[in-house]
Amino acid sequence: MNAPDAMSIRHAVVAAMPLAEKLFTILRRSTTAGAGVSRESYGPGEQIAHDLAAQFAREQGLDCAIDPAGNLYLTLRGRDASLPAWITGSHLDSVPEGGNFDGAAGVIAGLVVAAGLRRAGIVPARDITVMAVRAEEASSWFAGSHQGHIGSRAALGMLEPQELSGAVHSRDGRTLGEHMREAGFDPIAIRGADPYLTPERFHGYLELHIEQGPVLENIGKPAGIVTGIRGSSRARNARCIGAYSHSGAVPREYRSDAVLATAALCTLLDDAWSEMQAAGADLVFTVGKLCTDPDAHGITKVPGETRFTIDLRSQEIETLEAMTARARAIADEIGRERRVTFDLGKFDLSAPARMDAGLQEALAEGANALGIDAPALPSGAGHDAQDFAHAGFRAGMIFVRNANGSHNPHEAMAMEDFCLGTQLLAWMLVR
Amino acid sequence: MNAPDAMSIRHAVVAAMPLAEKLFTILRRSTTAGAGVSRESYGPGEQIAHDLAAQFAREQGLDCAIDPAGNLYLTLRGRDASLPAWITGSHLDSVPEGGNFDGAAGVIAGLVVAAGLRRAGIVPARDITVMAVRAEEASSWFAGSHQGHIGSRAALGMLEPQELSGAVHSRDGRTLGEHMREAGFDPIAIRGADPYLTPERFHGYLELHIEQGPVLENIGKPAGIVTGIRGSSRARNARCIGAYSHSGAVPREYRSDAVLATAALCTLLDDAWSEMQAAGADLVFTVGKLCTDPDAHGITKVPGETRFTIDLRSQEIETLEAMTARARAIADEIGRERRVTFDLGKFDLSAPARMDAGLQEALAEGANALGIDAPALPSGAGHDAQDFAHAGFRAGMIFVRNANGSHNPHEAMAMEDFCLGTQLLAWMLVR
Repeated sequence: MNAPDAMSIRHAVVAAMPLAEKLFTILRRSTTAGAGVSRESYGPGEQIAHDLAAQFAREQGLDCAIDPAGNLYLTLRGRDASLPAWITGSHLDSVPEGGNFDGAAGVIAGLVVAAGLRRAGIVPARDITVMAVRAEEASSWFAGSHQGHIGSRAALGMLEPQELSGAVHSRDGRTLGEHMREAGFDPIAIRGADPYLTPERFHGYLELHIEQGPVLENIGKPAGIVTGIRGSSRARNARCIGAYSHSGAVPREYRSDAVLATAALCTLLDDAWSEMQAAGADLVFTVGKLCTDPDAHGITKVPGETRFTIDLRSQEIETLEAMTARARAIADEIGRERRVTFDLGKFDLSAPARMDAGLQEALAEGANALGIDAPALPSGAGHDAQDFAHAGFRAGMIFVRNANGSHNPHEAMAMEDFCLGTQLLAWMLVR
Repeated sequence: MNAPDAMSIRHAVVAAMPLAEKLFTILRRSTTAGAGVSRESYGPGEQIAHDLAAQFAREQGLDCAIDPAGNLYLTLRGRDASLPAWITGSHLDSVPEGGNFDGAAGVIAGLVVAAGLRRAGIVPARDITVMAVRAEEASSWFAGSHQGHIGSRAALGMLEPQELSGAVHSRDGRTLGEHMREAGFDPIAIRGADPYLTPERFHGYLELHIEQGPVLENIGKPAGIVTGIRGSSRARNARCIGAYSHSGAVPREYRSDAVLATAALCTLLDDAWSEMQAAGADLVFTVGKLCTDPDAHGITKVPGETRFTIDLRSQEIETLEAMTARARAIADEIGRERRVTFDLGKFDLSAPARMDAGLQEALAEGANALGIDAPALPSGAGHDAQDFAHAGFRAGMIFVRNANGSHNPHEAMAMEDFCLGTQLLAWMLVR
């Protein structure tokens, strides 16, 4: 039996769209808290979302499984159980007062594909497992020492045991392990066990997600095919140490002005960013936090200290390394010129993840067959897909256009765009 | 009776120096908070200093008076009560975590002159009133709309009534008027009344102050005679408004990054400063406070807002006006280029003040008589003396050498230098 044609897939997905709308509505209604939705990692909102997904799956005749970290696996059986299965999904937690679509859209897309295929009588070649991932947004709920993306990394054997005790809840101070156990899961089993998911058992990982940047919105395209996920190099505790002195009485040549030195650093790194981008590098550069010392600064004092952060992101590890080195070199040079000392501290490096080239080609082919104008673009934000790629899975991502960014209550994904992205996902999953 | 000779004056002052050392020590000990001393304008530290001065004055038999703004007047009676009195002094408040000498040295010098003359049996020709001024450093404690130098300007009838409500405490948000009232004084009386001090009632105003710049230290002179005081043009509540967005997902061309825009403004104004200075202008430029919003910023967010201050100082009013105009023009240009809006707010202009030529001559004569090498130099910092000059008083200033600048805990004035400066002050006051 050949794979079904684009027309059949479109019909199957369009027919299932009312189910998606219903799921989004119930999910929003049952997890709204404050201005947006709040589905706390290993908290009540996330559990509501998992229960909703499991109930839907049972109604649609999918198999259900849960791993020791609480990730949910909902499987539509294919024709040949001996073939490695597709795995598709995303996370169901959110940031505090976030939007309804960030994460959930990928799980609902997978469920709607399974439901739509089943209702249309289309049996896929191989099993399709929809994974509802836990705690991708853990960095917004747990402080302390951990790398985030808890659910996917636990399933893939990438969670370090010390993260279970090192991640500490921002509000109640208890550890990630305790929260996991109270939510009904088994942190001890995660520590010793072989990975729950291994690349050889799967055909690949596909994730549909809203775009968190403005690119598709601005170029007027409903969906995109992700080329890779940017890695990051981050200085969380950078400082510039100068010397406080009188703003009126000290001549220029005797000053050690931390603000003008930091401004010079920002300006020169901004210039370096322009240059590197013009030379073809993929890069964004952000100083998200910058402050003089509220206990010591004053309008009439030459500022003696600044504290700031640097966030560099790129799809190319060489670009991250080059820009990090550039930051250190420029800081040293400015330090000498301006009689200040920069202490940029440690840069935390998170490696970029390339999406599988074969999957990108197949996605482009599918978009073409379905008549969807889906350009290639990088992902600036992190996603569960990066962990699958780092674990050796073939990984691919579909972005759906979304106005107003994410991590805020104003996310705006049109259901028409979601429907097109879900068709493309279905086209891949029946192959 | 002729004025006493230089030798008598030196002996009187030298003999009173242990009193000065004791006052400095008690003052430091009783107002230390954090790394330095904190004598908040109309706050507890300033009050401790005033109580200490009043107690010392009572012990030395000086008359005490307090005006509605809380300025303290401690008077040694002279031979002829019909002659206009000398007034000498400075302020007793400090910046947060500042040094012990900025301001206090001028009050203690006046008190020590009075005590020393009295102990030596020298009766001055005219009354000598030592004034302990309130809230000269108000700009470091009160934000909002005010011109600083609250105490001297209130006494001289130069405080605008709206400053009492427009100056808002940086920490508790209450007005200057409320703080003044809670400290025990009478803001309502200030509003309507005639000036407490008028030039025709006084022979002149003399202020001893540590040099807040490094000039005397660098040229190796113990004291200096001030020629004039730089004016200032200050933006107290400047802002840059951009837009918060995802630091990984939003490309350069869609960003409205408030930090990089503010850094560009600082860097271009730094360049403008260099140019104007090279062209012979007298100018210093300081951004003493610069912060992203602690409630909204994050390492993974493009910053949507900064708040900052600008302090320009010059002996030339034209230079202040030119640099202020330059700041506005550059901000507009960067705003257009970088999709942000600068709101620099109002620039408060304080005119430069010339010290009285006759008093400068008399000071030079006194320095010569006392064998003190005291060159003429301008003051980069603002002082209460400028308000007296603006109000029509003959005003003069003595600078005492001071290492490490001021407005920081590391001010270093040698008592030997203070003693020489105080001798020069005494020489003037007995005339």
